[in-house]
Amino acid sequence: MQSEVITAAIIIIGNEILSGKVQDQNVQFIASELGNLGIRLREVRVIPDIENDIIETVNSLRCKYDYIFTTGGIGPTHDDITAESIAKAFNKKYDFIEAAKILIENYLKSVGKEIREDHYRMAYMPLGAELLLNHETGAPGFKIENVFVMAGVPYIMRSIFAEAKKFLRTSSPIISRSMVTFVPESVFAKKFEELQLKYPTIEMGSYPEKIDGKWKTTLVLRGDNPELIDEAMMHLKKIIEDVTK
Amino acid sequence: MQSEVITAAIIIIGNEILSGKVQDQNVQFIASELGNLGIRLREVRVIPDIENDIIETVNSLRCKYDYIFTTGGIGPTHDDITAESIAKAFNKKYDFIEAAKILIENYLKSVGKEIREDHYRMAYMPLGAELLLNHETGAPGFKIENVFVMAGVPYIMRSIFAEAKKFLRTSSPIISRSMVTFVPESVFAKKFEELQLKYPTIEMGSYPEKIDGKWKTTLVLRGDNPELIDEAMMHLKKIIEDVTK
Repeated sequence: MQSEVITAAIIIIGNEILSGKVQDQNVQFIASELGNLGIRLREVRVIPDIENDIIETVNSLRCKYDYIFTTGGIGPTHDDITAESIAKAFNKKYDFIEAAKILIENYLKSVGKEIREDHYRMAYMPLGAELLLNHETGAPGFKIENVFVMAGVPYIMRSIFAEAKKFLRTSSPIISRSMVTFVPESVFAKKFEELQLKYPTIEMGSYPEKIDGKWKTTLVLRGDNPELIDEAMMHLKKIIEDVTK
Repeated sequence: MQSEVITAAIIIIGNEILSGKVQDQNVQFIASELGNLGIRLREVRVIPDIENDIIETVNSLRCKYDYIFTTGGIGPTHDDITAESIAKAFNKKYDFIEAAKILIENYLKSVGKEIREDHYRMAYMPLGAELLLNHETGAPGFKIENVFVMAGVPYIMRSIFAEAKKFLRTSSPIISRSMVTFVPESVFAKKFEELQLKYPTIEMGSYPEKIDGKWKTTLVLRGDNPELIDEAMMHLKKIIEDVTK
């Protein structure tokens, strides 16, 4: 039985990634989580904090994939324009949401912090959005249709993502089995390709890296049928054994 | 005098990033290098090793930006389909390039390695492409019009990127000055916004992170006019000083 294919894309909104100042730490986490949920991450885009870019990217991707996750740009400073841009993408009013305000106030009270006017900026959202709780710093993310809007700070993003998960349809987890070899790719490339042709539903990849001057290659088999993957992995081990003889 | 605006995008071709198996290590390096060359990185896309995705992404971005850099998918295994896909994107023959073959052979001879049939896969490229030398492992990247095709393995990518640089027009380097504060964003957000309005040509960002339970925020000013950035930075320091009094 073929399981349902559910797809997703990530939009990283952040000049700090595009300038090379900051190394993204969110893609790998979200990608792994989605794999466990049986959701296929098809694309990632990193775009600047520019309203038009956000609107165009969100609108072009939300029709193409089942779920869109955005990170970044929902803080209290002027460069945080994600929520307003997404309101425009959906043609919704960018509105002050009382429930979001309460969540922000509650958090600040709980940690004994002063509430300032700028905090309330984080209570503005597209009208009709559903709040995604943020157990770390109060200010919530939100969901509008199939778009999940999350913070860029990794530990806050993770808290909001945990809430987002509640809304996701899932499918058979995507399972990955890998083996490592020090045999050069060019030695087994042809046999590996034949194996791929024999198991077209399994995604097969070869990822070389050089470690202490030595080539180490990780061969990865990915798919949602564990038995089939195990069977293919058996053949792959045999291939590598044969070429090392 | 306004300097010329030169733009670029990166396309990361790799299922291993989308599956969460591997953390990308190329974006930050290329982004920093481009900044030093005065080239503005406007967008990054991570896409799977799927021919149609590669063709569509390359063709939609190469008209939009001055330069496109791709990483990944030019090795000897069956999942390495970047070169062939790019030949199709440009409607060029995917051809065996004698010069590429010689570079591959020379490298293998120089390290005393056996030459195998699968090595020659890496000599296939779009007809008319210009080779980009790879001083690490021989197999070259290539340039076709404004698209630079590089390996995914970071140290090989860097070697090919060094060659790619020779083809790039450059502009005034993009300079970035930053300061760190432990004052919460919500305290200075309004004043910071006023500063942004006063200096519209400078890109101003605020990047909070939590370190040992304490909020540390990096305030970044970016642009190509060092004097103007220094002037704005002076004002910014004053703003932060005033709110900490």
